[in-house]
Amino acid sequence: MDLHILDHRLRVTSISKSGLANFTHPLIKLIFLRNRTRCKFFSLTETPENYTVVLDEEGFKELQPSEHLQVEGSIWLPLNVVSNGNTSSSSQAVGVTKIAKSVIAPLAEQHVSVFMLSTYQTDFILVREQDLSVVISTLEEEFNIYREVAGESTPVQSQNVSNGLHKNGKEALQSTVHPVLIPLNQFCVMSLDPDTLPSIATTLIDVLFYSSSPKEDPHSAQDMDCIKFFSFSLIDGYISLVMDTEAQRRFPADLLFTSSSGELWRMVRIGGQPLGFDECGIVAQISRPLADSDISAYYISTFSFDHALVPEEDIVSVTDMLHHQRKEASSS
Amino acid sequence: MDLHILDHRLRVTSISKSGLANFTHPLIKLIFLRNRTRCKFFSLTETPENYTVVLDEEGFKELQPSEHLQVEGSIWLPLNVVSNGNTSSSSQAVGVTKIAKSVIAPLAEQHVSVFMLSTYQTDFILVREQDLSVVISTLEEEFNIYREVAGESTPVQSQNVSNGLHKNGKEALQSTVHPVLIPLNQFCVMSLDPDTLPSIATTLIDVLFYSSSPKEDPHSAQDMDCIKFFSFSLIDGYISLVMDTEAQRRFPADLLFTSSSGELWRMVRIGGQPLGFDECGIVAQISRPLADSDISAYYISTFSFDHALVPEEDIVSVTDMLHHQRKEASSS
Repeated sequence: MDLHILDHRLRVTSISKSGLANFTHPLIKLIFLRNRTRCKFFSLTETPENYTVVLDEEGFKELQPSEHLQVEGSIWLPLNVVSNGNTSSSSQAVGVTKIAKSVIAPLAEQHVSVFMLSTYQTDFILVREQDLSVVISTLEEEFNIYREVAGESTPVQSQNVSNGLHKNGKEALQSTVHPVLIPLNQFCVMSLDPDTLPSIATTLIDVLFYSSSPKEDPHSAQDMDCIKFFSFSLIDGYISLVMDTEAQRRFPADLLFTSSSGELWRMVRIGGQPLGFDECGIVAQISRPLADSDISAYYISTFSFDHALVPEEDIVSVTDMLHHQRKEASSS
Repeated sequence: MDLHILDHRLRVTSISKSGLANFTHPLIKLIFLRNRTRCKFFSLTETPENYTVVLDEEGFKELQPSEHLQVEGSIWLPLNVVSNGNTSSSSQAVGVTKIAKSVIAPLAEQHVSVFMLSTYQTDFILVREQDLSVVISTLEEEFNIYREVAGESTPVQSQNVSNGLHKNGKEALQSTVHPVLIPLNQFCVMSLDPDTLPSIATTLIDVLFYSSSPKEDPHSAQDMDCIKFFSFSLIDGYISLVMDTEAQRRFPADLLFTSSSGELWRMVRIGGQPLGFDECGIVAQISRPLADSDISAYYISTFSFDHALVPEEDIVSVTDMLHHQRKEASSS
């Protein structure tokens, strides 16, 4: 299989709930006005805590510094696994499950932090630029690795990378097993022809910028059975949307499409306290057992928590599995 | 004829060019999200100097105080002349020309400041709430005057008004004759079914919020042959748009409609220095000779200047007339 290091240098940022109005102007430009921006990688995810915005440096320029904007200090690079058809996989699963053993587990073992961004089209594995040499040396046995620069893919090997292997020297640690939350709402993962984006503009603007009550308390929201979660991304011209069925009903049914008819997903939110960006192995902890059971999963990291989406019909076995995992961790 | 004092209490405000981004959130709500606001009277006009926003108190609540927001101190009430069909008018003219002699001239003689807002549908004459008793006593001979309150129209007469006649006691003055600017661009006055507003949302957002270069210098813009002028209003569910032909080309031709096929208008901007809100007779000065010549005119006041729109085919005679008026004023 091929692994591509994409030609985007990304920032991971968070806008506070109360500060969103201050960022409406640049965000609407980034979402709807393709001719006015050179941003090619944009993702906005609303959670009860905040809005996570992941975007390239062209997009990042649009965001004015503010008390409402938090910016993670690193440059992140998106990796993307491309099945080149030669590899016959017995798995029918999609999403991070496909890359759990080949990418996510090895990176976790090398203590490389990853920030996952699943979309309708593919799964982006974001790694820090400073970890790139470790990433390459870790994954080059399994993958043909290419670096994309200005539309050209160039094969890379660890010796090509300056400084060579910069293996993270930490000892293997037993990862913390984080508490999980399994809200009751059902989610859909959808896409949209970019040319029809104007048709849903006012609905999307309403949902993204005007649907949160300013009085919403993230702590009380965490106690609720249903979680506020809405994700929009526009990456290299492809649109992906993740929303619950309540939000979905607000959009015209004929414009948004999903892979299989009406496939619904349930969410597992990982983390009791905000996870931060330095802990490794969080994605691996969830994706490994899902891969063992061949259960599809989308995975979306945000500024505070991680979110896995698993098929509705698998939520009982996933819940059992997570329960078992947590029982083992507390008894060990 | 009937004159209605409409049930809107309006504020006249101005947003600086550089401050618009801070107001994108409330303005997009007021323009596109009718279900999220109780604002019933909203008008936004871009000129080279600033953005003039006229809106009712429900809308005004949405605008946060800011160094970028100027607010005229008064409450303004919109008046509206309704031809009840009984009056046979020999004039084919539309706009302020129809009301120049019956409303605008008498109010000017009584030193009542007016702020005009012509739309595709009608012409609103805004007067200060504190001038209402003078307005009623001045116009009640010519009109049946009704005050609209909560959907009901109640006849009013000057004795019904508390404090009775509060005639402005200033002496009749010769009004200043202001310099005029006649830019070369052609304008259209259009409307749109509110249900199709979402279809043009991204274009309208682009034109309103992203088309000004931040480096635009209003003083250099004034020297230009073409003027930046774009007006959008949503009043009691009716949409009106005034834009030049260059902006018009950006919108789908099948959604916006105009009264007669492709009727084009030229602009006369009145004022060399910002006009302020206290001078009376500015509208009368322009509308009286237009009425004498039976030339249609829309008239849009903004925070800094006034703007009359006259039919393209009449611009030569209007220019001559204005030139003559100014020559007389300087020789008197």
